[in-house]
Formats: sequence, C-alpha cells, structure tokens
Amino acid sequence: MSADLVIEGATIITMDGQWRLFDPGYIAVKDGAIVGIGPAAEAGAFGRSASTGGDASAGGDASTGGDVSTGGDASTGGDVPEAKRHIDGRGFLIMPGFVNVHTHVAMAAFRGAGEDRDDRLLRFLFPMEKALVTRELVHEASRFCMAEMARSGTTTFADMYYFEDEVARAADQAGLRCVLGQTVVDFPAPDAAEPYGGISYAERFIDEWKGHPLVTPCFAPHATYTVDADHLRVIHGRAERLDVPILMHVAETQAEAARFKAPHGSAVRYLDSIGLLDPRLVAAHTVYLDDDDIALLARRGVAAAHCPASNAKSGRPIAQAWRLMEAGVRLGLGTDGPVSGNGMDMEGVLCLFPKLQKVASGRRETMASREALRAATIGGAEALGIAGRTGSLEIGKRADFLMADSGDFNMQPVYDWYATAVYAMRPHNVRSVWVDGRAVVEDGHMTGFDEAEAKGAMGRIAGDCRGEIARLMEEIR
Amino acid sequence: MSADLVIEGATIITMDGQWRLFDPGYIAVKDGAIVGIGPAAEAGAFGRSASTGGDASAGGDASTGGDVSTGGDASTGGDVPEAKRHIDGRGFLIMPGFVNVHTHVAMAAFRGAGEDRDDRLLRFLFPMEKALVTRELVHEASRFCMAEMARSGTTTFADMYYFEDEVARAADQAGLRCVLGQTVVDFPAPDAAEPYGGISYAERFIDEWKGHPLVTPCFAPHATYTVDADHLRVIHGRAERLDVPILMHVAETQAEAARFKAPHGSAVRYLDSIGLLDPRLVAAHTVYLDDDDIALLARRGVAAAHCPASNAKSGRPIAQAWRLMEAGVRLGLGTDGPVSGNGMDMEGVLCLFPKLQKVASGRRETMASREALRAATIGGAEALGIAGRTGSLEIGKRADFLMADSGDFNMQPVYDWYATAVYAMRPHNVRSVWVDGRAVVEDGHMTGFDEAEAKGAMGRIAGDCRGEIARLMEEIR
Repeated sequence: MSADLVIEGATIITMDGQWRLFDPGYIAVKDGAIVGIGPAAEAGAFGRSASTGGDASAGGDASTGGDVSTGGDASTGGDVPEAKRHIDGRGFLIMPGFVNVHTHVAMAAFRGAGEDRDDRLLRFLFPMEKALVTRELVHEASRFCMAEMARSGTTTFADMYYFEDEVARAADQAGLRCVLGQTVVDFPAPDAAEPYGGISYAERFIDEWKGHPLVTPCFAPHATYTVDADHLRVIHGRAERLDVPILMHVAETQAEAARFKAPHGSAVRYLDSIGLLDPRLVAAHTVYLDDDDIALLARRGVAAAHCPASNAKSGRPIAQAWRLMEAGVRLGLGTDGPVSGNGMDMEGVLCLFPKLQKVASGRRETMASREALRAATIGGAEALGIAGRTGSLEIGKRADFLMADSGDFNMQPVYDWYATAVYAMRPHNVRSVWVDGRAVVEDGHMTGFDEAEAKGAMGRIAGDCRGEIARLMEEIR
Repeated sequence: MSADLVIEGATIITMDGQWRLFDPGYIAVKDGAIVGIGPAAEAGAFGRSASTGGDASAGGDASTGGDVSTGGDASTGGDVPEAKRHIDGRGFLIMPGFVNVHTHVAMAAFRGAGEDRDDRLLRFLFPMEKALVTRELVHEASRFCMAEMARSGTTTFADMYYFEDEVARAADQAGLRCVLGQTVVDFPAPDAAEPYGGISYAERFIDEWKGHPLVTPCFAPHATYTVDADHLRVIHGRAERLDVPILMHVAETQAEAARFKAPHGSAVRYLDSIGLLDPRLVAAHTVYLDDDDIALLARRGVAAAHCPASNAKSGRPIAQAWRLMEAGVRLGLGTDGPVSGNGMDMEGVLCLFPKLQKVASGRRETMASREALRAATIGGAEALGIAGRTGSLEIGKRADFLMADSGDFNMQPVYDWYATAVYAMRPHNVRSVWVDGRAVVEDGHMTGFDEAEAKGAMGRIAGDCRGEIARLMEEIR
C-alpha cells in the first residue's frame, strides 16, 4: 500500500467508537486522508520500519520526531512502495487535533481589555467593537490568534464575528479547518451600516466560500436578544436553502434567561416556538437550562458548544454538560473568544472542563478523562456536523492530528493516556500539527505564514487600539 | 552602586504593597538579594544601559534575553561599577516567582494513576503508597517534579510527604526555596514502621536541615482523621519549641466534616479545642467551613493553602477563598500533589482560581486579576511566614523571580499585565527563573541537575510501579 506519510512508534489515541489506543502505533496518510492506522508492528505494509532509525523515545528536546527517511531505499524489499515521508514517532503522542466549537478569533486584538467589569458586553465590548473593528483588524488579529490555536493543537474551530470572509482568508493561509459564521445583529455593525445587514453579508460570504476543502461558511445570528424572531426565521430559512449551519449564543446570560422566562418559559423554548431548534443549530454556552430545555435540545437534535472557561470567568453557573451528554445532545468544547476566556489553547479548557463538571455534580466520577477528551475532539466534530471528516483517527477520515512530545516533565509518567492528555498536557508539548494531511505546525512553528510578520502586525493594531480602550475603561470605571 | 546582576528593559510586576509596576523597568541583584528595582531609566546607577544592546523586544524565540555584557568596558564612565552580568530584558515580563503553598512532589511517580475513582485516598492511594514508596522513589520523583515546577516559574513550594529529607536534598540540588513538612500518621508509614514514627523522624529532619538558606524543615501531621488529639498536641508543642511551621490538611473531605460536626461543630473548631490554631499552622484545603470557622481562622491567625484544581477534580464544593481573604486570613495557592491536581505548573492553578471564585460568588468582579496573582506570589509567602524574604520584588528581599517571554502569541497583546499573567501566561512562556539570586532555570532548562538523567530515573521508577498500580486498579474496579 502506498502513502505520502507514515509516522511510526508513537502512542496513538484514536478517539474512535471502540476507544482504540495503539501504544506503540502507526498512522499512514495519503492525499490528505488516513489510509492506515494500527499497532506499530503493522506499519510495514506502508514501507520500511522506522525502528531502524535513531531512538527518540527517551524524551529530551524532541521536536517533530526524527525524520528517518524522505523516500529512497526501502529496507523491507521491493514489493512495498516507500512512503514519501517516514517519521519516527517514538516518544510522541498522536491524537486527533482539538475541535474548538466556539470562538471569536479576531477579538485577540482586545485580549485582557476591560477585565472583571460587570455587564462587560453591553457597557464595554459592543462600544469598543463599534469604535475599533475594521476589515484589516479582523484579518490580522485572526491570523495572530490562529497561531496560538494551531501551535497548541487545534485543527478545527468554529468562529462567529464580523468581516468573517477575512477570518476565512486567514484560516486558508494558516491551513486550519473551520466553520465560520458571519454575525447578524439588530444594530449597525462594523461590517454593515444597516441593522441586519449581516444577513446579505453572510449570503455573499457563503456564496464565495462554499465548497472550500477546509472552510464551511455559515450564518451567525448573535443571540436571542440581538436578533428578533422575524429575522431569526429568515436566517433559518436561508440556512436551510443553502444547507449551512447556524451558530448562535443561546441561554448564555441571566438577563436573557429573565427576558424569556415569563413569555416562553425559557430562551430555549422561545427558540423552539419560532422553529429555530434543529440539527443545524450549534447553540453556544447553554448555561441557563432547566430539565425541559435539556430534553428539548436532545429531541430537536440541537448541538451544544460548551465554554467552561468563559462562563466561569463571567461568574455564571456551571453549565450541566454531563446532563446534556447523558441526554444525547451532541456536545463540543469551546474556548470562546480571547477576550472571554483569554487562553486560546484547548488544553486550558479541556483541563478545566471535567473539574467543573465534578464540582457541579458533586461527584469525582463525573466526566471521566476519556469522556472529557471526547468532547474536545470527536464530540466537537459531531456538534459541528463534520464528524465524517474529522475528530477521530480512523481510516477514511481527513488527517487532522497533533503530535505531542510525551517525554517532557509535565507529561510523565503515564499510567492513563486519557488522564495525561486531559490534565497534564500543556500547549508547549504540541510539536507538530497536521490538517488535511498537511503540516500546519512543524517544530512548534506555523508553516503557513511568517510568525514575526504576524506579531508585528498585531503590535501595530494593539498600539492603535490602546487609546480608545483606555478611554472606554475610564468611562465605565 | 555595585551589583552582580542587572536586568533592564523588562516589564516588572513587583507585587509590593503599592502594586508598583515598571514598564519598562530594571532589577539589580547582589549577593542573592534585590538591591535595586525601578523604572529602566534609573538603571544607570548600576552600570551602563542595556539599551545600547540588540533589540530583543519584537518577540520571536527569545530565551533568557540578550546578554549584553558580562563585565568589561562601562560606557557610562568610570565612577559607576559595572554589574558582573547585564541582561537586556526587553520583550520579557519579570515578576515574583510563584509560591506553591501545598503539594506532595514525590507523588509525581504516581501521576494519572487511579483517576476518577470514588474514595480514592483510602481505597487506592494509601495502599499504593504502602506498597511502593521508598527513599529512592521520593528522591528521584521529587527531583523530577521540581523540574516541572521550576521551569514553569515556581521559586518556593511547601511540601508534605514521607522521607522528607530526600525532598530537601532534591530541592537543594534544584536550588528551590521550600518549606518541607515530614508526615506524621497513625499507621505504619513507608518511612516509619510504628504509628506516629513520623514525629521522631521529623525531629531528626528538622535538626539536620534547620538554618539552611533555602529549606525550612517542619512537621506535617497528615489530617484530623489520621493523627489523634494527643499526638497533635505533642506536635504542636515541639513545633513551638523548635519554632517551625505545621503543615496539615484541614477541612478537606466530607467524611472529615461529618465526623467533627456533632462533637465539635466542625473540624476547625475541633482543632481549636485542642489548641492547634495559631499563626504557625498552614491549613491546606479548608473547603468545609462555615461562617464561624472563617472568623475563627482569621482570629487565630491561621494561614490557608487553597488548592482549587485538586478540590475541583475531587468533586468538592468550591472553597470560599475570597471570603477568607476578606476576613484577613493569609491565603496562598497550591497545586496539591501531582496525583491530585496533575499539572504542577502554578499557571494552571492561577488561571483556574479566580474563575472558580467568580462561579462560587456568582459575580464577575470577585477576585480581580491582581488579587489572584497576589495569592500565587506574596500571599503564599505570607501564608508560609516567609514574606520577609520572598513573594514580591522589593529592595532587601531575596531575588526570587521569573522571566517570561511576553512576545509569544498567547501573551499578546497586553492591556492589563495582571490579566495577562493570570489568564494568558502558560508554562512555556517562562524562560528563566532565579532563586536567591541564582539562575535555577536558564533558557527553559534546569541548571542544578541533568534533565535527561532525571527523566531516565523516573522512567525506571514508573516501570517498577506499573504492575502494582494495575493490580490495585483491578482490585477497586
């Protein structure tokens, strides 16, 4: 069998339906898809064994693994075609890349601004965005943010923001898989002078990007309190016609919960009353839910984007993710934007997620490590409706995975690979990241664009924002 | 003025009583103490300016900063003595090293074992320790763990375990400041065949290590349910006579809370009834507290070691740290052992801490970034009774600080240095760490011992433990 890439000797967490884990294992990639995966001993079918190469297993400062060959003489004989690239994976953990189901990457430009203030969204963030968000800022801040995401192992993300076509261009450059929702709001936005101008913007965006191998363009009505029922119905109809997802903040804030309590029982039941709840909807946050809401979300096939870091940092109750999962709701994990959760690495969110679920349920057994890791990978892919393509390492799926140095001090020893991946792994352990079979991160650095240039651009943008942010902070003091 | 080391141009968070922050600033060190700190413009008093050196501020892969000079010709003229080492700190953040107030470093040997099991301490951890803990394991696992701690910026830690003299030897080698409590329990322990044998072990240990510049040896009665009242009184008396701290788990578990509820009202009030509560006691966890307990801890001057990651991972209620702080209790942050919190970097705990406090209080304003950072630095030093020596960057204190590359993607942009340090900084941003004026980490690596050798030793130890751990896991299935 032929392959473009074979990595052999790494521990492989597949996150497939049988919880298969190969230690040591191999993975073979051809034309961007996984064509072989299993115990390392079976790698021979794809060419000579990497075990003839140098020993990279003792830890140390391993980078992307010892590159044993890039073609050339095959030691296993003449019948087996040699993979174009053969990597010695010993000392590494390979697992599906993280799927970050909810964020606003361009808000990297504002990270750390207006912290710890009550009613931050309405008093600080909306006015700040009105004053500062431009097409250039969205492009540069998105690209900058993707470096943090990709370098820490995220291969897929779902984003909601303005000028979403610029996020698409940045993602195309970075080489990341994504579901991108163009924001629709009932007030003049940075990219639309008229209220609801986001709808036509989104249609143009979807038209431009639909069919892209990595980018899924779609609609992102902001929330129940910023898009009215009529426009939500319009968006839903167009999303159906164009067959694209809808990303939306749902049951996130206390004010929202209070607003829909009397007339509809809850924000979720309000959305159901206007026909919004179906498998197309990815509902972000879902903090304020009662038992009926949970049952309703499950029955309608709505997906949930759980954002524990952002919700906790806002002082919100802990969303009962374990109950949503038990009810059968597709559930993924999200960082939320850099202004909300600050860290854009999924390790931070993944490490937090089961802890909060254990606190909320009062039980140590709630959300065991492998269930938590599921939400950060294949669970997220299911939530976004792309589990056929990504989220687990299985033959036929696209090759989206991370390779982490498992020999570092914080990763050892290992008695339970799921616990290691969830609680011990940190962003710097990720050394290379592959999306659609392409290395988007090698030796800890982006391959798709110049990192220094991206940092320089962000420095200039932050310099331009600083004055306005200080002025607004003063205003809400 | 003369100095051994001057670092100039870095942003400096001092964590002093006036929240002074120098951006850019300088710090000067002589004989292990801070002899100068302030705006960069005032660094000239300690020799020539680093601003004549290369520009390290643009980010990129900065390591320990550009070493501008190691003596030689002073460009500022003949009067000012040149520092022995002059570092260009531009592009770096300097802040006090983290103070980790509660851990069990040797348990690094068992990280990830027995996860997500109910009643884990009694059913799994105690039997495992009985079977596996040896003097050699404690030494090697402690040393291994210290690499993770130091490399992520921890300069001081408080530890409770068996064979604590081996932890001291490892810390001496690593160059870390520490308060080390020899464990006392009412059952035969790995280092004491007789119940309470830990008391005489502790006395020998204290005798051996008292007066060490970095190591403070002391007593660590395990908990209210593993050391009886008579022995707690004995330990308290000896700690007073030897003038050393007492480290102890207090009000950590639900079973403990239930046990003392009827006879004494609470575990805290039980300890008060036997005279244990005074400023010498560092009470770890303090999860199960009522209003009277909080007031009592404050009145008696007891310090609290708050371990949010460990407590949450155990499914416990969120300890109300903000209320303890408001009541005037000295409060520091701890990782707890590698088996409990898994990650030994204080960044992980620090990032979690204010989030949980906001959740518990239901308010976004609770535990603002700088208050959170306080608990991880000077607050911890206060809790351990060593704030005169460490915890903040002030003239006269020992030079214990970390230097982080603030140009990395996850650290930028910066609008609020406290929010950046608390929510955005990750272990890999720390590039060098100084304790008592000595660089214990340079360019991300330990200077005190060979990292590869430490990893090799841990690999052998984990190999030896694997069988017994698997057997025990099977037993409690």
